[in-house]
Amino acid sequence: MRHQQENPKRKQVVILGGGFGGLYAAQALKAPDLGITLVDRRNFHLFQPLLYQVATGGLSPGDIASPLRAVLKRNGIRVISAEAVDIDPKGQKVLLSDGELPYDFLVVATGSSHHYFGHPEWEPLAPGLKTVEDALEMRRRIFLAFETAERESDPQKRRAWLNFVVVGGGPTGVELAGALAELAYGTLKGEFQNIDTREVKIFLLEGTDRLLPPYPPKLSGKAEAKLRKLGVEVRTQSFLTKIEPGSVSVRRGEKSEKIPTHTVLWAAGVAASPLGKKLGQRCGIATDKAGRLPVEADLSLAGFPNLFVIGDLALFAHQGDAPLPGVAPVAMQEGRYVAKAILDRLRMRDTKPFHYVNKGNLAVIGRNAAVADLGFLQINGFFAWLIWTFVHIRYLIGFDNKLLVLMQWAWNYFTRNRGARLITGEQLLPLIETNFQAKDSHSAKR
Amino acid sequence: MRHQQENPKRKQVVILGGGFGGLYAAQALKAPDLGITLVDRRNFHLFQPLLYQVATGGLSPGDIASPLRAVLKRNGIRVISAEAVDIDPKGQKVLLSDGELPYDFLVVATGSSHHYFGHPEWEPLAPGLKTVEDALEMRRRIFLAFETAERESDPQKRRAWLNFVVVGGGPTGVELAGALAELAYGTLKGEFQNIDTREVKIFLLEGTDRLLPPYPPKLSGKAEAKLRKLGVEVRTQSFLTKIEPGSVSVRRGEKSEKIPTHTVLWAAGVAASPLGKKLGQRCGIATDKAGRLPVEADLSLAGFPNLFVIGDLALFAHQGDAPLPGVAPVAMQEGRYVAKAILDRLRMRDTKPFHYVNKGNLAVIGRNAAVADLGFLQINGFFAWLIWTFVHIRYLIGFDNKLLVLMQWAWNYFTRNRGARLITGEQLLPLIETNFQAKDSHSAKR
Repeated sequence: MRHQQENPKRKQVVILGGGFGGLYAAQALKAPDLGITLVDRRNFHLFQPLLYQVATGGLSPGDIASPLRAVLKRNGIRVISAEAVDIDPKGQKVLLSDGELPYDFLVVATGSSHHYFGHPEWEPLAPGLKTVEDALEMRRRIFLAFETAERESDPQKRRAWLNFVVVGGGPTGVELAGALAELAYGTLKGEFQNIDTREVKIFLLEGTDRLLPPYPPKLSGKAEAKLRKLGVEVRTQSFLTKIEPGSVSVRRGEKSEKIPTHTVLWAAGVAASPLGKKLGQRCGIATDKAGRLPVEADLSLAGFPNLFVIGDLALFAHQGDAPLPGVAPVAMQEGRYVAKAILDRLRMRDTKPFHYVNKGNLAVIGRNAAVADLGFLQINGFFAWLIWTFVHIRYLIGFDNKLLVLMQWAWNYFTRNRGARLITGEQLLPLIETNFQAKDSHSAKR
Repeated sequence: MRHQQENPKRKQVVILGGGFGGLYAAQALKAPDLGITLVDRRNFHLFQPLLYQVATGGLSPGDIASPLRAVLKRNGIRVISAEAVDIDPKGQKVLLSDGELPYDFLVVATGSSHHYFGHPEWEPLAPGLKTVEDALEMRRRIFLAFETAERESDPQKRRAWLNFVVVGGGPTGVELAGALAELAYGTLKGEFQNIDTREVKIFLLEGTDRLLPPYPPKLSGKAEAKLRKLGVEVRTQSFLTKIEPGSVSVRRGEKSEKIPTHTVLWAAGVAASPLGKKLGQRCGIATDKAGRLPVEADLSLAGFPNLFVIGDLALFAHQGDAPLPGVAPVAMQEGRYVAKAILDRLRMRDTKPFHYVNKGNLAVIGRNAAVADLGFLQINGFFAWLIWTFVHIRYLIGFDNKLLVLMQWAWNYFTRNRGARLITGEQLLPLIETNFQAKDSHSAKR
């Protein structure tokens, strides 16, 4: 490994992670006396809030990804494609998979991945939605399920291919379930000969007593009503107890139910990136259950004023009753804040504590339908949907002028089209048991 | 497996393959007394002529793929997701991977895949460009090569990562080499700190004495001149003799050369789909070297007037000196022709022999540059490029109203942007030998 020699006089800022937190920090750090390096395992920033659109065939990965080098070129920021495997906070260096990187200021923004509530064996059966690969795997499973149902002559087996189970009633789960309903009951209607896509059942499982738990109860109710109207079976206070190939088991109070399905989509637990735990050990700070690192009011780690942790990895508990949630707006504001905090430190200025300004919570349910909690105003329906669309497109355009995504969006909206519904990857074809003995198998009637 | 009971009075047309040939045949077959079934392994039609744009990060797979069910829904055509493994021409049925399908008329349009000139061991070292997965693998290797060169401190090793070898000087090879040159010398310029992308070398190998062998020599010369101007090293009369991890060996006349490279892109031989050989055996017809089936003047197989072979799988030698080439316009016209031939047979009408109308050959070399052979007129440069763009977008729009691709195209053109340059899949990170002992390795100067 080699890195270009940096000007030794320049203070070095190293940012780990090119998600919302890291990218906003990098873009906000404008100072001629700073050398800025961003490290990421991937060569692109991913606009995760729209990943569910990739999973359901509405957008392509390229539509919601921006090459990090292209985004950061104008800012003169060095980009390193590598994985940060450890941090030495006393020696002030990052250990990469293939070398070391010294720093004067460090911003750790390595985010989170799935968490299967102590059931890692569920992962292959229930893909999550954090990476492009995750979304393409979901897309493959969703569309392969329809194709397999079309080819399956046994009504019971067919049923399992037409049941979709979404685990988790947060924004991602709500958005996924809504998109699946539009797909099955709208886009795909009339495209199959042996199945009627109206037979599809979409189950949305949520452990608490309502959808979108962080939102006001009124909006949760609106979201649930809208999803039910779209045809989604919403199951609150329902806990997944088992995932097996071909079925899931769900417990609700005393009752237990087994739902036959081959398509389980995970939108539930997240766990902070494993780097957090290592860093915590090095700094003598314990992570919480979800693997997050408690941070000071200025987002630094206690005892390490030049080491900041932001985004999903940070546990910020200095505002309100609960820690700040792991959502994009929090990460963005934290990123901008630490950029300012670093400049303040360089200039020997004081820094005010971080304060998150919640501009509102949004979740989209489907065409024309969303819920928005703007604090002073709670709205739902078409106007909430418009706000949702506007906000997302605005942030997406911020990086990469992805104006075309807006047009793709408008196009999909007016045509109900989902043109990116490709089955790609490993298994491409329905796996149906062959039975050539049964002479009449090919003309079996429904 | 089950298929919906078809009206037994209706004659059944089965089309194998949803490429240009199969899709044009299906769309042209409009008759109320026909039951039409299209069988494909994939759930989408792929606009292969633009696949090189996916490989080089200009477009996403979803941009050039159209879901077969969506395209054929309005025509009332049944789509079956399955692989045709064999054909029984006397029993008039197709053997699928999971059942049988009887037919009255059969159109075989299963196309072609790569062919490594008797070196199947080259395949993992030199991916081709026939499927979405191929293009994504090429994309991964191309962009990972840049990232690895950026991380590699050994100048000799770095050289191998900055050499790209394109094998085959036909339209695909020319288009790939041109796109790579624009990528390296334009789009990526200034995005790296340790490498200068102007150091990249792109080798285009062609066995004959000129590029684009089927075109008039004048245009071949123009194409070569333009590619050289873009920075591509064009090597005609050059034969690949060996591909190893890390290098290729090339022979030109008596001279032999070893080019260090990790990125070999295959745009050379194609072989017809293996179904052709099986079908030939069943019908007593020998395939040619490339696995193609000789067809009659009406595209049927000798002795089987209700069985047609079209597209890359067909060897049509009833027009001109050479068989028709395996290109999209030939497949499209053959598809339309067999649709008419089937209707003629049903109506007891005579059918004129197939006649291919060559509207011209086109190859794009880069921004503003293409060569066009329109028969009566040979042009190159900007106007040829405009024609190329217009023709491709027109056909692409034909299926799926992919107007947005035109806009993406225009956007990329004006911004020189390639936003879909994602490294996805298996290996995502540069593999550089770790050497933590070398204390100064991270500050090694170029």
